[in-house]
Amino acid sequence: MTLWSTTKRLTKRVLGYPENAPPVVTVNDWAQKLTDDPKHEVMNYIESLFPITKWITRYNRGWLYGDVIAGFTVGIVVVPQSMSYAQIATLPPQYGLYSAFVGTLIYCLFATSKDVSIGPVAVMSLTISQIISDVDKRFPGMWEGPQIATTVAFVSGLIVLGIGLLRLGWIVEFIPVPAVSGYMTGSAINIVAGQVPGLLGESGFDTRAATYKVIINCFKFLPDTKLDAAFGITGLFALYAIRIGCDALGRRYPRRQRPFFFVSVFRNAFVLVVLSFASWLYCRHRVSHSGKYPIKILETVPRGFQHVGPPVIDGKLVSALAGQLPVATIILLLEHIAISKSFGRVNGYKINPNQELIAIGVTNAIGTVFGAYPATGSFSRSALKSKSGVRTPAAGILSSLIVIVALYGLTPAFFWIPTAALSAVIIHAVADLVASPQQAYSFWRVSPLEFIIWLAAVLVTVFTTIEDGIYTSICASLALLLLRMARPRGYFLGKVTLTAHSQEKTETRDVYVPLNPKPSLMNAAVKVTPPAPGIVVYRFEESFLYPNASLLNTILVDYVKANMRRGKDMSQVKLSDRPWNDPGPRPGHDENAENLKKPALRAIVLDFSGVSQIDTTAVQSLIDTRKEVERWADRAVEFHFATVLSPWVRRALIAGGFGTGVPSSSVPSEIAAVVPYRGGQVAPSADPQHHDEEAPAPHKLEEYEITQNAPIELDATPFFHLDIVSAVRSAEGTLLREDMSSARSSVSKSPADISES
Amino acid sequence: MTLWSTTKRLTKRVLGYPENAPPVVTVNDWAQKLTDDPKHEVMNYIESLFPITKWITRYNRGWLYGDVIAGFTVGIVVVPQSMSYAQIATLPPQYGLYSAFVGTLIYCLFATSKDVSIGPVAVMSLTISQIISDVDKRFPGMWEGPQIATTVAFVSGLIVLGIGLLRLGWIVEFIPVPAVSGYMTGSAINIVAGQVPGLLGESGFDTRAATYKVIINCFKFLPDTKLDAAFGITGLFALYAIRIGCDALGRRYPRRQRPFFFVSVFRNAFVLVVLSFASWLYCRHRVSHSGKYPIKILETVPRGFQHVGPPVIDGKLVSALAGQLPVATIILLLEHIAISKSFGRVNGYKINPNQELIAIGVTNAIGTVFGAYPATGSFSRSALKSKSGVRTPAAGILSSLIVIVALYGLTPAFFWIPTAALSAVIIHAVADLVASPQQAYSFWRVSPLEFIIWLAAVLVTVFTTIEDGIYTSICASLALLLLRMARPRGYFLGKVTLTAHSQEKTETRDVYVPLNPKPSLMNAAVKVTPPAPGIVVYRFEESFLYPNASLLNTILVDYVKANMRRGKDMSQVKLSDRPWNDPGPRPGHDENAENLKKPALRAIVLDFSGVSQIDTTAVQSLIDTRKEVERWADRAVEFHFATVLSPWVRRALIAGGFGTGVPSSSVPSEIAAVVPYRGGQVAPSADPQHHDEEAPAPHKLEEYEITQNAPIELDATPFFHLDIVSAVRSAEGTLLREDMSSARSSVSKSPADISES
Repeated sequence: MTLWSTTKRLTKRVLGYPENAPPVVTVNDWAQKLTDDPKHEVMNYIESLFPITKWITRYNRGWLYGDVIAGFTVGIVVVPQSMSYAQIATLPPQYGLYSAFVGTLIYCLFATSKDVSIGPVAVMSLTISQIISDVDKRFPGMWEGPQIATTVAFVSGLIVLGIGLLRLGWIVEFIPVPAVSGYMTGSAINIVAGQVPGLLGESGFDTRAATYKVIINCFKFLPDTKLDAAFGITGLFALYAIRIGCDALGRRYPRRQRPFFFVSVFRNAFVLVVLSFASWLYCRHRVSHSGKYPIKILETVPRGFQHVGPPVIDGKLVSALAGQLPVATIILLLEHIAISKSFGRVNGYKINPNQELIAIGVTNAIGTVFGAYPATGSFSRSALKSKSGVRTPAAGILSSLIVIVALYGLTPAFFWIPTAALSAVIIHAVADLVASPQQAYSFWRVSPLEFIIWLAAVLVTVFTTIEDGIYTSICASLALLLLRMARPRGYFLGKVTLTAHSQEKTETRDVYVPLNPKPSLMNAAVKVTPPAPGIVVYRFEESFLYPNASLLNTILVDYVKANMRRGKDMSQVKLSDRPWNDPGPRPGHDENAENLKKPALRAIVLDFSGVSQIDTTAVQSLIDTRKEVERWADRAVEFHFATVLSPWVRRALIAGGFGTGVPSSSVPSEIAAVVPYRGGQVAPSADPQHHDEEAPAPHKLEEYEITQNAPIELDATPFFHLDIVSAVRSAEGTLLREDMSSARSSVSKSPADISES
Repeated sequence: MTLWSTTKRLTKRVLGYPENAPPVVTVNDWAQKLTDDPKHEVMNYIESLFPITKWITRYNRGWLYGDVIAGFTVGIVVVPQSMSYAQIATLPPQYGLYSAFVGTLIYCLFATSKDVSIGPVAVMSLTISQIISDVDKRFPGMWEGPQIATTVAFVSGLIVLGIGLLRLGWIVEFIPVPAVSGYMTGSAINIVAGQVPGLLGESGFDTRAATYKVIINCFKFLPDTKLDAAFGITGLFALYAIRIGCDALGRRYPRRQRPFFFVSVFRNAFVLVVLSFASWLYCRHRVSHSGKYPIKILETVPRGFQHVGPPVIDGKLVSALAGQLPVATIILLLEHIAISKSFGRVNGYKINPNQELIAIGVTNAIGTVFGAYPATGSFSRSALKSKSGVRTPAAGILSSLIVIVALYGLTPAFFWIPTAALSAVIIHAVADLVASPQQAYSFWRVSPLEFIIWLAAVLVTVFTTIEDGIYTSICASLALLLLRMARPRGYFLGKVTLTAHSQEKTETRDVYVPLNPKPSLMNAAVKVTPPAPGIVVYRFEESFLYPNASLLNTILVDYVKANMRRGKDMSQVKLSDRPWNDPGPRPGHDENAENLKKPALRAIVLDFSGVSQIDTTAVQSLIDTRKEVERWADRAVEFHFATVLSPWVRRALIAGGFGTGVPSSSVPSEIAAVVPYRGGQVAPSADPQHHDEEAPAPHKLEEYEITQNAPIELDATPFFHLDIVSAVRSAEGTLLREDMSSARSSVSKSPADISES
C-alpha cells in the first residue's frame, strides 16, 4: 500500500497535479451522461430504421382518399418529367422512368416525411451528364452512359446509407443556404441553356460545354433553327399560358381554386399528349428512306424493365468515378434533406434527417437492380404532393403503379414525343430554380459577404462546371466562417444607469454597453460612464479559441499600455539603457508627468457572456496577458470573469490559474509552451518575480449578495461572477478597500491615486 | 428624370426593397472606415519593411557591450550546433555553417526582435532530411541532397516573404498550441532515435525510416556497437554533467550565477574541442590503408564558402518538391513566429509578425546564394541571446563573424570531430524539445480533447512522418473547431433576485441564470425563478451561423411543443384526420386537459449576448422558428432580442423581419429559400395566414426607462433590448397589458389564462 501511495504521490508530482484546486467538471461526468440507458437507445435506433411500422397499422379510409389523389397526381406528373430529366442526363428516356418507379415505391417504406417525392431531378441529372461526359473523355468508349449512371447511383447510395446509419447527417449543416442557392441557380441556367438548342432544333455543338459557351453557340447557330422549334416554342408557350391562366383564374374565383390547381398541374402531360399527337399526324408519312423523321422524336422507348438484375459494379469504373463521387453524394443528400425539412416545417411535423438519408441511400442502391439512375427528393413534385392533400407516405405506391402502367402500356405512344417538347417541359420546370432578384437582394440585406459567395457560386457554375461551383461555394463559406472566428468584435464597456419611475418607488439599474456605442445601437444622447479608474471592462464577442487567441492579448495589452500608468518610472532611464526600439521621450516632453496622469491598473473585468468555449491556446494567451499587464503595471492585477456558464470553460480557466485568487507568480507561466526551454538557469534579468510579495490572498467579496439566505456565488472561485454588474462591483470593491487602507496608512503610491478615488 | 425615377421604382419593386425599414449599417459605412488615410498607411508600410532605420542612428556604447557579449556567445554556440543539425538533415557539416552565417547576418537588417537568433534548427533539419529522402526515392540520383535543401530554402523563403509582404501572417494563428507541441515532441523523439545509432556507432539500417522502426533497430543492432560509443556516451554524459552541475552551483551561489551560466553555455563547444583532441590523439596514427579511421570522424570540411553564386533553381526539382513545400513553409514560419512572439512577451516589447516573416523569407531566399539550407528561429539560441543581455539585433553581426572565422580558420580542426560527439550534442539539445509530463497533463486539464489531439500528433509523427503529424494535428484541430461551432451549448434562463443590504437602503437586482444550473456554476441552494408563464427566455452561446443554425430551431420548437399550450384543440380531431405520424392520445388520457394546463406562448426572449455574428442561414432558421411556434400557439408570438451589440447582426435581424414589430405574416417567409417554388397557386391547405388579424402593431414599451432625460433604446426597433432584464420586462409588460385588457372585456380565452397571471 505504501508503494502504491508513493507511486501516486510521485506521479502527481511529475504531472504537476494541483493539490488544492477547486472541483471542476471531469471527463467522467461527461461519460456518465452518455451511457444513460444504452439498451433503450439501441432499441430506439432499430425501431427508427423502419418508420412504416408505426403508421401502417393505423391506415384508414380517411387517409386513403388523400393518398389516392396525391399519388395519382404525382404519377401523372412524374412520367413526362422523368423522361425529360433523363434527357438532361443524356440518358435514354426509359432510365428516367426506372428511376421514378424505384424512387416513388421504395422511399415510402423508410420515409419520415409524407410529402417528399423521390425521383429524377434536374440538378442531379445535370451532374450525371457531366460525370458521363468526364468519364467518357478520360476513358473513351470504355463504359456506356447508363452503366456509369447506375454505378454512381449504387456507390453514392451506399455512401449516403452509411452516413445515415452512422447518424452523421449533421454534416449537411456545413453547406449554407447561399452556397446551395448559388449552385442551384447556376445549374438551372446551365440546364436551360443546354436545352435551348433542343427546343430550337439546333445541332452541331456540345451542349455539355461550359454554360457561357453554350449560350454563345445558341445565338451563333440561330440560323440553323429547324422545324422542331415549332413544336418546342409552341409547347413552352402553352405551358406558361396554362400556368399563368390558371393562377389568374384561381385568384379571380377563389372558391374554384382546386379545379384550376389540378388543371395547371396536368399541363405537362397535356402539352406532351397534344404535341405527340401533332407530331404523329405530321411525321408518320414523312419518314425518309434512311428511317429519319422530319423532326427529332423519341422513337423506340423499350417496353417494361429491360435492365433488371443484380447490379454490375465494375471496380475500375468506380475508381474512375472516385473524384466525382463526392459531388454526386453532396447533391443527393443536400437536396433531399433541404426539401424534407422544409415540408416538415410547412406541414408541422418533424422529420429525422438521418432516417431520410437511409431512405434515399436504400432507394438508390436498390434502384441499381432496376437500372435506375440517381434519384433524390424533387421539390416541385413534393410541393405538388403536399398540395394535393397527401396523408401518408403510402401515396408513393400509387405513383409507382402509374409509372409501371406508362412503362408497359404507353411506350408506343412515347415513340412520337418530339424531343423539342421535352426540352420545353425541362425549361418550363427548371427556370423556376433560378433565384429571384428579391432573393439575391435579401442575401445582400442579411449579409453582403454571403451575397458575394452566392454570386461566386453562380458565376463559377456558369463558367466552369457545377462541381467547381459547389466546391467554390462550400470552401468560400468555410473560409468566411473561419475568418469570422478569427476576427471577432470586442468592446470596452462602460455603465449606463437606468432609472424606472413607478408610483411607489424609483428603481435604478446598471447596464453595461460599449464605451463608444454606435448610433444604431442606442440613443446617441445617452452618455456612457466609464468604469472606476484603474479598472478595465472588456467584452470578447466570440468563443475564445486558437484562431482568435492572440487577438484578445493584443487588444488588452495595447489598451493597458495606452491608457494605464506604467509602474516603472522611465524618466530616470538613460537613452542607452532603454530598449533599442524605444526612441525615448520627445524633446521638451515630460514622459513621467504624462504617465502619472493615467490611473494605475487594478483589475481587468472580462465579460465572458460571449465566450462559450475556450481552449489551451486561449488560456495560454490569457496567462500571457496577465503577465504582460502585471509587468507593465508593476503590480498584481486582478482578473474578474463575468458570466462563465460552461463548466468546461470554468475548468480551463481554473487550470490556467484564474478565478481562485491564486497570485499569478505561483501559477506555471507556460501551460502550453510551444517550445519548452529547460537548458540552463533562469538568468537574473528575465521575468523578475516581483509580484510575490504583492499578490493578494484569495479574498472575500465586499458586496454581500444574499438571496434566499445563501450566497449565490461559489466560495472557491471568488473571481467568477454571475454577471457583469457583480464582477465590476467586486473589482471596484477591492479598489475602494485598497485606497482606503492606503489612505489610512498614508502611504499613497503617487499623488494621483487619491484624487482618483 | 421621370424615366430615372420609374426605373428606380421598378428596380425597388423587383428587388423587394423595404420602404419603411429602420436605418441599418451599410457597406458604405464599412468601406469609409477602410480608406481613412491611404497615403499615410502606404508610408507606414514601407517604413515598416526596414526597421533597422529606426534604431541604427541611436546606436551607442551602452548597447555595444551587451551586443558583443551576446553575439560572441551565440557565435560560439552556433558553430557546433549548426554542424550537428546539418548532420540531422543528412547534409555535409559545412552547410550548417553557411546557414548559420546567413541567418545571423541578414536577419538583423529586418528584425523587429532583438532576441531571436536565426540559423539551422533541429525540426527543420529533420524535415529537410525527410524531403531529401523522399525526392531521392522518387527520382533516384537525379539531384544531390544540398541542391534539394537549398531549393527548398529558396522557394519556401519566397513563399514566406510573400505572406509577409501581403500581411497574411495571421494565418499562423490557425495552428494551435497542442498541434505544434505534438509534432515538436514527435519530431524530437524522431531525431533522438535517429542519432542513437550514430552515438553508438551502429550502422546497417535506415535511420530515416519511421521512428518506431529506428528504435527497434537500435536495440536489434546493439551488439554492433563500435568504439564510437566511447566518444559519444562520454560526450553526452559530460554535457549533462556540466549543465546540471552549473545549475546546482548557480542555485547554491546566487551571486555567481552569471559565470556559471556562461560555463554552462559553452559546454557544447568545450566537449567538442576535448573529444576532437582525443580523437586526433587516437586516430592520427591508426588510419587504414584505404584511408579509413577507427572511429567515424568528419574528415575534410571544405574551407570557406564553396557554393557562392546565383541560386540555381531547377524547375523540375521545384515541381518534384511541390507536395513537400507546404510542410517546409509551415515549419519555417511557425517556429519563428512562436519564438519571436514569446521573447517579445518575456522582454516586454512588441514584434511585428508580418515583418518577421519578411525577415526569414529574405534570409532564406538570399541564403541560397551562399549555399545555405533552410534556417529559422532557434529557441535555444534565442533564449541564450536574451539571457546574455543582448541589446539590439546588431548582435547577430558578431555571431556571423565568428561563423566566418570558424569556416576559414577552424576547418582543419573540424577534420577530427567524431560524428558520435555531434550526435551527443544533438541528443542533448533536442531531448529538451519533448513535452514534459506536466505539460501534457496541463493540456488535459484545460481541454481533454486537445490532449487527444496532442497525443495523436505525437503518435502519428512517431509512426509515420513529421509531415503526416503536422497535417493530422492541424486538421484534427480544425475539425474540433468546426464541431465546437456546430454544437454550441444553450440554456433556458430563469431569474435570481439578488438583494444587497447596505446601511442606507436595500437594493435588489435580477440576474438571469440557467433554469437548472450545474452545481459548479453557483450555490445549489439558490432557487431559480422561471419567467412568467407564456414567456420563454433562451440564451444561445455561440455566433449564430450556418453550422448551428438548425440547432436553435430544433431546441426552441421542441421546447415550445413540450411546454406550451397548443392553440388548436386536438381532442375534437378524429383519428383519420390526424397526421399519419401522430398516434393520437393514449386510451384514458385527456389530451386536451393536459394541453390546457400548459401556458399559452406569448413571447420568446432570446439573449443574444453570446451571438456576435449571424448569417443568412441562421436568419432563415429564425424565421422558420417564428413560423413554427406561431403555428403551434395559433397566435402571434413576440420575439425579443437582448444585447444585440453588433450593427451587422441588427441589420440581418431587421432584414428577417425582427425587431421592428412588423407581424410575421407581412414578412417574406423565405428570405433564403433553398429551392424557390413558383409553380402553381398557393393551395388552400398549406400555411394558413391566420396571424394577420392578430398581429400586434409595433408597440411602445410599458417600462419607461429614462436616463439623462433621454430614452436609451431606439424607437424604430422596440424588440431589441440593451440587456436581458429589459427584454424580459418588456415581454412581461406586454403579457400584463394583454391579460388586463382580456380580463376587462371578460373574453378570457381559457380558464388557465387568468389563474396564471
